[in-house]
Amino acid sequence: MTVMSSSTYSEQPGRVMSREMAEQPEVLRRLLGAGAPKIRETARQVAARRPRFVLLTARGTSDHAALYAKYLLEVRLGLPCGLTSMSTTTAYGAKPDLRDVLVVTVSQSGGSPDLVASTQAAREAGAITLAVTNNPDSPLAAVSEHHIDILAGPEKALPATKTYTASLLALYLFIEGLRDGDGAAAGPLPDLAADLLARQPEIRTLAARYRFAERMVITSRGYGYPTAKEAALKLMETSYIPALAYSGADLLHGPLAMVDNISPVIAVVPDGRGGEALQPVLDRLRGRGADLVVIGPKIQVEQASAGFALPTDGVPEEVQPILEIIPLQLLAYEVTIARGQDPDAPRALAKVTETR
Amino acid sequence: MTVMSSSTYSEQPGRVMSREMAEQPEVLRRLLGAGAPKIRETARQVAARRPRFVLLTARGTSDHAALYAKYLLEVRLGLPCGLTSMSTTTAYGAKPDLRDVLVVTVSQSGGSPDLVASTQAAREAGAITLAVTNNPDSPLAAVSEHHIDILAGPEKALPATKTYTASLLALYLFIEGLRDGDGAAAGPLPDLAADLLARQPEIRTLAARYRFAERMVITSRGYGYPTAKEAALKLMETSYIPALAYSGADLLHGPLAMVDNISPVIAVVPDGRGGEALQPVLDRLRGRGADLVVIGPKIQVEQASAGFALPTDGVPEEVQPILEIIPLQLLAYEVTIARGQDPDAPRALAKVTETR
Repeated sequence: MTVMSSSTYSEQPGRVMSREMAEQPEVLRRLLGAGAPKIRETARQVAARRPRFVLLTARGTSDHAALYAKYLLEVRLGLPCGLTSMSTTTAYGAKPDLRDVLVVTVSQSGGSPDLVASTQAAREAGAITLAVTNNPDSPLAAVSEHHIDILAGPEKALPATKTYTASLLALYLFIEGLRDGDGAAAGPLPDLAADLLARQPEIRTLAARYRFAERMVITSRGYGYPTAKEAALKLMETSYIPALAYSGADLLHGPLAMVDNISPVIAVVPDGRGGEALQPVLDRLRGRGADLVVIGPKIQVEQASAGFALPTDGVPEEVQPILEIIPLQLLAYEVTIARGQDPDAPRALAKVTETR
Repeated sequence: MTVMSSSTYSEQPGRVMSREMAEQPEVLRRLLGAGAPKIRETARQVAARRPRFVLLTARGTSDHAALYAKYLLEVRLGLPCGLTSMSTTTAYGAKPDLRDVLVVTVSQSGGSPDLVASTQAAREAGAITLAVTNNPDSPLAAVSEHHIDILAGPEKALPATKTYTASLLALYLFIEGLRDGDGAAAGPLPDLAADLLARQPEIRTLAARYRFAERMVITSRGYGYPTAKEAALKLMETSYIPALAYSGADLLHGPLAMVDNISPVIAVVPDGRGGEALQPVLDRLRGRGADLVVIGPKIQVEQASAGFALPTDGVPEEVQPILEIIPLQLLAYEVTIARGQDPDAPRALAKVTETR
């Protein structure tokens, strides 16, 4: 563990991440209000081009937003999708035939040179290109034919939080627009997000459980799987606990041997078909006596070792990911605080300061 | 850690996995000989259908073989590809439009019901379907329009080894067939695989380093990335060390904070453009004083903390993955033995025996 200097502590550890998590209801409200008409118009223009396949390009947290979009596109639009292996273009110079292909690049900053290069290459190869960023003046927005601004405001903390939920909502509204839906299911999200944030004390209690954890496993299925991957990244970035995300189906294939008393498990249980598909995995984990914490419907939480109940009434499964990551962001934050570390100053940055 | 009963030890731990790893040169030779004409003919039939997009479906180890195929298809054929999110079909009943889409399902057993169901659904949705399995009599082979037999013989150990390298080679030969190539680059692989297996004592020395490791990070780029993912799975399945695989680009995004003195790093360095793209990551890791073990060209090994040199002369980058996983399979085996565990009896199975 890195020993932080006392000056780091005096500046109130996690202040920046905490503030940005708290902004999420406001950011979601802004997207639903000021942002939605532009997104709907972009969707209309893209739909007119009748894409037959979709490729999604992103890294890190944005890659999990892209994965959420993949589920939406496949389930709700029946569009076959793939996540881009960027190096095929940037390192190997692949020249795929991208006629009829929509290429969606998701990037908070819109400044990563390889994302810009691969989007430019896609456009030259005939793709319809769309950038989803938090910066309309970014190079990525400039090289893309279409651009959606996620309107999250500047994000300063290294662990991305508000740009993640904003990307999810922007992608949801865009994909609803493609199918000419109104995205009304997203309406209650800002208020529900505020309710979740207000329950931070519950998460603080849960965090105590992981103060001495050496590893964690996070599992889900369907729409909840991007949440599991994002939660694992968040926990690693802030607390450095190795957190392994598996789809429930993959977990049963071998990594299950790691569970039992060694690795606590967090299950993200969607209220809907994803949750139903996860049920055999939950039963198996309980049967093995795993320490199982559920983020999901109250009835599932009650059957687990512990958990955090999510609202389900009037929240269709396809928008649940926008809410269910919030308690997990808070968990990453609280676990890190409980371990005496600073969520705002992950070691990679602290090192830079130290060698100044 | 599970305490094994003495009877488990008396049966010679890792005997089954060891035997199957040793069969790899023979399996590769069989595929290049008896297997190749049939694969070439299958490729000819599929190419005549002119697929425009490829979806790859698999789980666990086979998913890493599918990822290797994705790189080959994108780089060498310019065909955009995606890995299937299976639950969109099996849990959510998505009905994508799959005309002009080649759906490749990779499964050692060919028996997994959800793979069979999703392949059947793909065929009904207009896809060209191909199953790559180790069992021509499997339900998956039966529902697929085309089938490639990887000819690896029965695999009994829980950690898949020979079926992985056989799947890679079968996919390589198929994809070369699609572009009307002869796949001659694969010719030297059986002899080279035998050379690597003969160097097991070198790996034993390397394994001592990880005997007390609490976590590991494995990184690569391009063609080497599927190897990194497969190596991480192999290490977890056998030794239960949480092993996190990242593409070099993703590693720089946050998980780098986990490295330093906490997590030893294994870098799989392709000899070619993937290795070049990984160079900045290697420099960064060295600059941070990470414990860096390289599996790759001799010159890269010499600049690392330790490593294992791979043959590079006359082995083009696109077939290197078929060799570079072999020392990592051996490493998973040797680390597990060094920790007093049995690679043949991962805990999930041991438990069944214990409660008998």
